[in-house]
Formats: sequence, C-alpha cells, structure tokens
Amino acid sequence: MPSSIGFIGLGIMGQPMALNLVHAGFPVTVFNRTPEKTALLKEAGAKVASTPAEAAAGADFVISIVSDTPAMEEVVAGKGGILETIKSGAVAIDSSTISPVASRKFACKVAGQGASWLDAPVTGSKHMAIKGELTYMVGGDREAFDRAMPVLQVMGKKHIYCGTHGLGLAAKLAQNVIQSTMVEIFCEGFVLAAKAGLKPQIMMEVIQGSMARAALTDFKAPFIFRGDFTPYFPLKLMHKDLTLAMESAYAQNVPMPTAAAVKEVYGAAKAQGKGELDYAAVVTFLEELAKVQVRE
Amino acid sequence: MPSSIGFIGLGIMGQPMALNLVHAGFPVTVFNRTPEKTALLKEAGAKVASTPAEAAAGADFVISIVSDTPAMEEVVAGKGGILETIKSGAVAIDSSTISPVASRKFACKVAGQGASWLDAPVTGSKHMAIKGELTYMVGGDREAFDRAMPVLQVMGKKHIYCGTHGLGLAAKLAQNVIQSTMVEIFCEGFVLAAKAGLKPQIMMEVIQGSMARAALTDFKAPFIFRGDFTPYFPLKLMHKDLTLAMESAYAQNVPMPTAAAVKEVYGAAKAQGKGELDYAAVVTFLEELAKVQVRE
Amino acid sequence: MPSSIGFIGLGIMGQPMALNLVHAGFPVTVFNRTPEKTALLKEAGAKVASTPAEAAAGADFVISIVSDTPAMEEVVAGKGGILETIKSGAVAIDSSTISPVASRKFACKVAGQGASWLDAPVTGSKHMAIKGELTYMVGGDREAFDRAMPVLQVMGKKHIYCGTHGLGLAAKLAQNVIQSTMVEIFCEGFVLAAKAGLKPQIMMEVIQGSMARAALTDFKAPFIFRGDFTPYFPLKLMHKDLTLAMESAYAQNVPMPTAAAVKEVYGAAKAQGKGELDYAAVVTFLEELAKVQVRE
Amino acid sequence: MPSSIGFIGLGIMGQPMALNLVHAGFPVTVFNRTPEKTALLKEAGAKVASTPAEAAAGADFVISIVSDTPAMEEVVAGKGGILETIKSGAVAIDSSTISPVASRKFACKVAGQGASWLDAPVTGSKHMAIKGELTYMVGGDREAFDRAMPVLQVMGKKHIYCGTHGLGLAAKLAQNVIQSTMVEIFCEGFVLAAKAGLKPQIMMEVIQGSMARAALTDFKAPFIFRGDFTPYFPLKLMHKDLTLAMESAYAQNVPMPTAAAVKEVYGAAKAQGKGELDYAAVVTFLEELAKVQVRE
Repeated sequence: MPSSIGFIGLGIMGQPMALNLVHAGFPVTVFNRTPEKTALLKEAGAKVASTPAEAAAGADFVISIVSDTPAMEEVVAGKGGILETIKSGAVAIDSSTISPVASRKFACKVAGQGASWLDAPVTGSKHMAIKGELTYMVGGDREAFDRAMPVLQVMGKKHIYCGTHGLGLAAKLAQNVIQSTMVEIFCEGFVLAAKAGLKPQIMMEVIQGSMARAALTDFKAPFIFRGDFTPYFPLKLMHKDLTLAMESAYAQNVPMPTAAAVKEVYGAAKAQGKGELDYAAVVTFLEELAKVQVRE
Repeated sequence: MPSSIGFIGLGIMGQPMALNLVHAGFPVTVFNRTPEKTALLKEAGAKVASTPAEAAAGADFVISIVSDTPAMEEVVAGKGGILETIKSGAVAIDSSTISPVASRKFACKVAGQGASWLDAPVTGSKHMAIKGELTYMVGGDREAFDRAMPVLQVMGKKHIYCGTHGLGLAAKLAQNVIQSTMVEIFCEGFVLAAKAGLKPQIMMEVIQGSMARAALTDFKAPFIFRGDFTPYFPLKLMHKDLTLAMESAYAQNVPMPTAAAVKEVYGAAKAQGKGELDYAAVVTFLEELAKVQVRE
Repeated sequence: MPSSIGFIGLGIMGQPMALNLVHAGFPVTVFNRTPEKTALLKEAGAKVASTPAEAAAGADFVISIVSDTPAMEEVVAGKGGILETIKSGAVAIDSSTISPVASRKFACKVAGQGASWLDAPVTGSKHMAIKGELTYMVGGDREAFDRAMPVLQVMGKKHIYCGTHGLGLAAKLAQNVIQSTMVEIFCEGFVLAAKAGLKPQIMMEVIQGSMARAALTDFKAPFIFRGDFTPYFPLKLMHKDLTLAMESAYAQNVPMPTAAAVKEVYGAAKAQGKGELDYAAVVTFLEELAKVQVRE
Repeated sequence: MPSSIGFIGLGIMGQPMALNLVHAGFPVTVFNRTPEKTALLKEAGAKVASTPAEAAAGADFVISIVSDTPAMEEVVAGKGGILETIKSGAVAIDSSTISPVASRKFACKVAGQGASWLDAPVTGSKHMAIKGELTYMVGGDREAFDRAMPVLQVMGKKHIYCGTHGLGLAAKLAQNVIQSTMVEIFCEGFVLAAKAGLKPQIMMEVIQGSMARAALTDFKAPFIFRGDFTPYFPLKLMHKDLTLAMESAYAQNVPMPTAAAVKEVYGAAKAQGKGELDYAAVVTFLEELAKVQVRE
C-alpha cells in the first residue's frame, strides 16, 4: 500500500509536484492558502484539506513548499499547523527556501512529535517540475532521506544528500548567491561593453569562446538581448534568497562583500518595480543607470 | 616573401607567441626589456634588437605584449620607441591589456606615421599560447585586421573583430570583469557553505548539477580544493584588469557596483601578498576572513 | 504615590538606569537573566524578581533593555514572560535595539492585555546613563509617551517623540548607520593617508580645520591613534545594529549600497575576533588589510 | 619689491584667489584657457598672458588651479607649458586636485629647471576664496613652503605643511573620501528613516543631539530638505576626487571597500545627469531608488 502524503503549497512549483505524486498513485491530501488553486488537484484525484493540520493528519510524508519563513512558521506552528497532527514516524519534507535557522527550529519541533524533518529545497524551472526532473538538496537524518526517496524520486531526478539539518538550505543559498551574481556581473560587463560601442552579439561570441561560458548565461542571454523578462525565477525571490544568504552569513560570521553589493543591486531593481520579472531584468536597472541598452 | 615582424615583449605569453611566428617561417626581430629572455628566440632563428625602434624598423607587423600602460607608453613613445621607426603601411598589433583610452592615443600616434594600429588582447593560458590556440579580440580598422590575419592565425585559433579602436580592449576588460567575479563569488559561496558544515565536494556536485556550472569554475575548483595556486593568471594582473575596467567605467559614466566590490576583494588579497599566485587564491583571503577552509 | 516599575535587563546600560529610578524614589522590581547582576540593585532597595512576569506583575511601567530580538521575544512572550502579568493600563518601555517589525508585534501583543508599548531606544555612553543624561528616541502612542515622561526624565535628558510604533527604533537604526559609517570611513581615509606617509596628527589637523569635523570622530581619534579599544560600544553590537538596519531596508525596499559595504567591513572585523572591542577597532582590520598603522 | 606671480586657471576658485593677490599688491600675470574669464583680472590690474609659459616667464611664483590631471599635464609639459619658461629658483604652487603620482612627476620636471614644486590643494567654498580664508594642505620641500608663505597667506588663513611631495594631495583626497561618504551615508540614513515614516526634521533633531553631529551635515541638511542643490562643490568633481583617491589606493595597495561603494553611488548620480549639482544631490539618486523623499 503506497505511503499517504499531505501536500502544502500549490504555487508555481508546488502544483506540478503534487500532480506528479497523484499521477504516481500516492494518496495525496492538499492544502493551499488560496483555495482556488486546489481545483486542478481535486480533479486529478487529490483530497482537499482546509488546514495544514488536516493535510498532515495521518500522512506518512508531509511535503511543503511555501513562499517564505513567516509563511512556513504558520504552516508548522500556527493555528491549524502541522504540529497539531503530524504523526510519530512521519517525515516532513520542506522544499521552501527559508532561513536555515528557522528550518532547524522546525526540525526540533516535529522531533518533539516523533516525526522527522528534511530541508529539501529544489532547483529547476516550472517546466522541470512538470517533468519530475527537479534537483533536490537535502539536509536532515540520512535514514529519513532514504525513507523519503520513493517520494522524492517522483518529483526530481537528482537528489543530493548534503548532511545534517539545514545543509540542504545552505547548499541552495550558496548556489543562489553564485547564480544571482553570475547573472548580475554578466549584465554589468555587457552594459560596460555596450556603452563602449560593442555589439552584444560580439561580446557574447567573446564569452562563449572563453572559459566564462556558462549554461546559465547562455540561457539568459537571448532573453536579455531581446528584453524578454517573463519570470522563470522572479527577481523578488532572488532578492529574498540573497537576503537569507546574508542572514546565514551574519549568523556564521562569514563576510560576503560581493554578495552584499549584489543584494543591493537586486534590491534597487526590485524597488524600481521589477520584482515580478525574471531576475535577469536586473540588466534593465543597470541599463537605466548607465543610459545604454544591451539589445540586439 | 613572408612579411617581416618586430616582436616586443617576451613574457609568459609573448615568448611562445613569438616562437610560433619564427616556426611558421616569418622573419622575426625581437626585443625584451630584460635581454636574457631573448636567448630562446635567438636560438630558434630570430634576430634580437636592443630597442623597440630597432625591432620595428622596416617591419610589416609590429607585435607587442607588455605588462601595463606605462610600459606600453615607453614602447611606443619613449626614447627608442617604435614611433621612431615604424614604417608607413605597417600594422602595429598590440596584445597588451592596457587602458583603452591610452590605446586609442597610440593608434593616433602611429597613424601620424602612416601606420595602422590594432588593439588585440588575447585570452587563453600559456599552454594555449604554445599551441597557437589563443582567442583574439581585435579593435581597429577592418582592413588592417584582414591584413593581419595571416599573422594572427599563427598565434590564435579564434579571432573576433570587435569594431573600431579600443573595442578589442573593451571586450577583454568586460570579459575579465565577468571572469574575476565568477571566481570570486564561487569562492564566497563555497566559504559560506563550508562554514555551515557542507563538504566542498557536495557543494560542487550541487553546482555541477545546476545551470551555474561553468568551464571556468570547473577548471579552478580542483585547484581551490587542494590549495594549489600555481599562477595561470596572476591575481595582481586580474586586479590590474579590474582597475582598468573601472577606469573605463568612470570615463564612460557606467556605474559598476559589483565590479567595484570585487576589485577591492582582489586588492585586499593582493595587499596580503597573494599577487603572484593564481587569481583563484582570492579564496584564501575569504577563508582567512571567515576562519574556515574550503578544502578536500 | 509614585508609579511602580518593573525593570528587565541589568547590562552595561540597564544597571545605572535602574539605579537612577531607585534613587529617584520609584519602587522598582528588577529581573536579570544572570541573577548575580541584581546584587547592586537589591542593595540600593530594589526588589528582585525571578522572571520577567514577576517583575511586571502590578507595575505601572515595565522597562526593558536586553541584547537582541530573540532575547526580547523571551522577555515578552516566553514562559514567565511579561505577557503573563502585565496589567491593563501599564506602559511597557522597551529600550532594547531590536527589529522594528518585532517591536511592532510586541506592541500588538501587549495591547491585547490593555497595555501600551513604547519603543524607546537610547543613545549615550554608560557614563551618560549613570548621570541620567541619555537621549531617548520614542515610538508609540503620544499619550503613553506623555504618561511615561516622569520615568523617562529620570534616565535621560533629551526625549524625542518620533511618531508611531517602530519609529523610535527607525531613528536609532538610521543614526547608527550614520555613526558606524562615519567611523569606518574616517579610518579608511586615515589608513590611506598613513600609507602615503602622512602623520595621523597632521591628517587630524586637516579634518579638524574642515567641515568634516565631528564630535564622534574628535572623540574616537585619540583612542584610534593610541590603539585603545576599550569598548564604549562594542563592535559586535554595531554590526548587529547595521544588520537590523539592513533588515529594515529590505522590508521597506530601500537600497543601501554604502551601508551594505560598511556592514561587511564590521562583519569581517568581528570575524577576526574584534567583536568585544569598541567599534573604532574597525581601524585595526583596515590596518591589517593595508599593512600600515594609524598611530602616534 | 614684491614677488612676481604667474597665475594659471581662473575658475570658480582661481578667479578670487588671483584677485586677492592683485589687491595685495603683487604683480600678477594670468592665463586662462578660455580668455573671456581674464577680463575681471585685467581690469583689476593683472597682465594677461596667452600661454602658461608666458605667465610663468620670470615669475617668482607660478600658481595653478585647473580641473584635472590631463589639463595640468598640458599646463606643465604641453606646448606653451610652464616648463618652457619657469626660472631657476621659482616656486610652482599647484592647487589643482590631481593625481599625486602625476604631481610628483611634475615636481621632478620643474626640478630639472632648478625650480621647486608644491602640491597645495585647498578646501573651502568660493565664498572663503573671496575672503582669503581657504585652508591649504601642502606637500613639498619645507624651505619652498616657507618661502611661499607670504603668497599663501593672501589666499588662505590656515596652511598645513603635510610633508614631502604628494602629501598635500594625499591629505586632500583622504579628506574628500571622508566628506563624500559622510554626506552619502547621511542621505542613506535619512532615506531609510523617511521610508519608515519619520519626518526629516525629527531625524535631524536625533542627529544633532548625538555625537554624529557634524558641521558638514548641519550645513548641507537644510539644502537637502528643501531640494536646493546649487553647487558649492559639484558632484562630478567629488566623483573625480573619489576616483583619484581610489587610484592612489590602488597604487599603494590600500583596500577601500566603503569608498569603492560610495564612488559608484556618486558615479550613478552623475550618470543620471546630476554632475553639475552640488554633491548633496546624491540624495535625489537615493530617493529615486527608494521611491521616497527626504523633504520638509
């Protein structure tokens, strides 16, 4: 008999993840703060709960993917939170990108009920969520990780066990520090070159012929060059992740001079109203500063 | 009859470049500030000049690759500089990474003698210089670029015509802004992860499984993980290039908040005595700040 | 009959503040996490409570000054917290420098008990606390502020009503952003000058003859020049306040490029073990980077 | 018989300085690149030269105050430059804020003619120039400084001998690093406070009641609060001075993380067209980023 699953958070990523679990034959009970988003899941065969607690009641696995630390605080410890019902022996798998400190606190709380906790943030686009091809970075007990694998394999194709509680998030935040900066400095460099009179395509040829070539900027460049900032990953979320990374850096006494500068650039772009666009829209902020365009 | 070549600057890159020209059958006259380095070229069949002017006298192409703007100022306009002898119709090909403003000034000066000027910085390691596989980014007249191709093809395998005078350098500086930042932020991210307790190899698995994977950091990572900073490209030169890029940014009114922060990190690493190491040694400065090591 | 006071937190500032209240004739009940520090107050005539709740029970004013947001969370809403006993009509006066967001949340919570809340951070040294000459920046209801004045006047000589809840803290954080940066850039400038060979005393003469003269740097300079970093305000607390300011900036969409850079410099100094020294010890971090000393 | 003076550069500061010398009875010969500006001096009794060389011919003191390093390069070593005529025993007093490296080079060149060189930058407003109340920071030989005092005393009321060649400029650049950052961070802090809802006047009361009070920000604040950016010192010149300071920092291996960030903020403000305004107009750039105004 397949494990039962409570699934909390049906956003851009959560919905296809939950659908894949239903399609794989797991009995799934979903909860979402705005109930409209549950329709598709209900149609596919999921039960719909009216609180996280109801979704978690009796479930073998409680999966969550919500927007930020306060939202997750509500899901875990608020009224109707999963702490009220999570059963002993269950595994909570949280794919939200939240504060590692908060995540470790949640791990302690569910441990008080006899349950396990995995911080299990993911990378990959909505498209990869649909195909079940996400990459998982997982922190927590190895035993719980192993037990969760049949479920994780439905949603992702790569699962990296990072170590103890919080290290999945640590990996995710370090990765996003690197990705956000790669995109930002690519844009700074292209703006500098464009202001000098260099065509973006020629600058791109230079980069692609060099060791600076990266899958990320190869992917983003055409969007940047034609000014298409349909969000793959919204700028405001990248800014949030940089902020979480800086909080971790503060807690661990790690100076991060470059990440600090990059965070302010994304913050300025967000303050200009670009938060809902893809984070590559940071280029438009730099273009406005420099009064030049990096365009075909 | 093959074109005659004056070649000025027999450093790490210059020596193999000049040797390739000799081996390809060009008559080459070399000059180097410290004469000892001319021995290998002499043995291979090159003539040795005692001034840049002597190397340039009568040459169809005058190639230079020296350390910085003041050194190139001497080569061009100092006593015994190439301006004294460069012939009308010659093409000066300067592969030094110097100030674009200075380079354009040199272009004007040689134009006064009827000669052409190309700013032609290169990327690639010493190893690629030996194999004649450098990448050239070239600014200047298209006609001079075309004329220089038989010579450039001996030293490089990719030649990108960037546009008017200075745009080869603009491309090179933008590229190095991007490369230096990619390495620096890779190190910041890995230091943050290491301080959290994540093993570098696991963090590397995360990056390599993501879009942040890049040839540059794939290449640098093993050196970083074992603390081997044998210089492929010395940190002090990367700091110099960042400084040149910031000077260009100043001249062109381009704000570069991230590059400015990165420049200070490399500058601090240089001030700690790491200037002669590979620029990936920036990791050791970050490690010292954070009191942690990113090591196997 | 004088108002009764519960006083929580007997640190460097809290102890003299509480003593002044006792000396002014208020009946005071004190609580401190480490009970040893209550001896002096007990001797002076204060009662000693074993929990914040006990200190707050029946008090007209509940004054608190603790180290950070989590500590204040415990004081307010932890087991034995003031929420358990604060009486309707009481005024809670919190002089801790904590997150404005958390402070507003505490204001809501005590309002649920019919009590008022003032965020009332102070500036001034321990010496000024002893003399009752602190400066208060106060946020909250005007009526509660007016009611609290007889108590505030015992501890401070200047009381600035800043507006609604959180604005006292907003003022304090903005002030510390300015002060921390003034000291940091003073040190950067003096390190630059010293490396050029300029004597600190001459540079000081330049600054004091200019509009850059400030009470803060006039005060800090002699300590800096003789390397005396006895803590007036510990570097780790300044780093904490910068971090709180950046969190506010994040919450309010305010880009702060300079404060972000300054925060990392203090963070790096703290990571080098200078957290317990006065924040002017940031100069020693800059000196170590530049390999020069700003000394008499 | 009074010493004869050649005076080069009749800008905002140069004109009143030269007038004071004429009024004090010195025979003065002036030169300015745009000849129109010489009218007032001619009327006052000065001779007008058509080249710097002509102004310097036979003069005991050759005073210069021009906009930047390239302009000074022309004045000294260009065609019709002072090197052509400066007499043995003369003292060149350069009050331009230029590169210390270039200044030392000029000192060497005039020494070749038997003349002395002082780098003698000034601080103070146009108003103070008119009243002869500038502050001088002077580098060079003590003997030449002493000899120049009768002339310097006409133009300034405070004269700080800083040491060898270049140290006057080193002091000036360090001072402007400090001043520019004080104003910038004052604005960042006030923008943060304003976005939180704090009135600028209340925030000003906080600052003025604290050790952060400074003559500079006391002076700038009313202009900032009413949006009056009539240039006392144009933003583009402050940006130039920050750039010179960073060049010195590079040459001397001094990491300056905060100054680097501040330079980019002024650079961004300049790129938005604010270069001709007073440098306090940096507040408008920060206001535009944060979408709030710091106004009465």
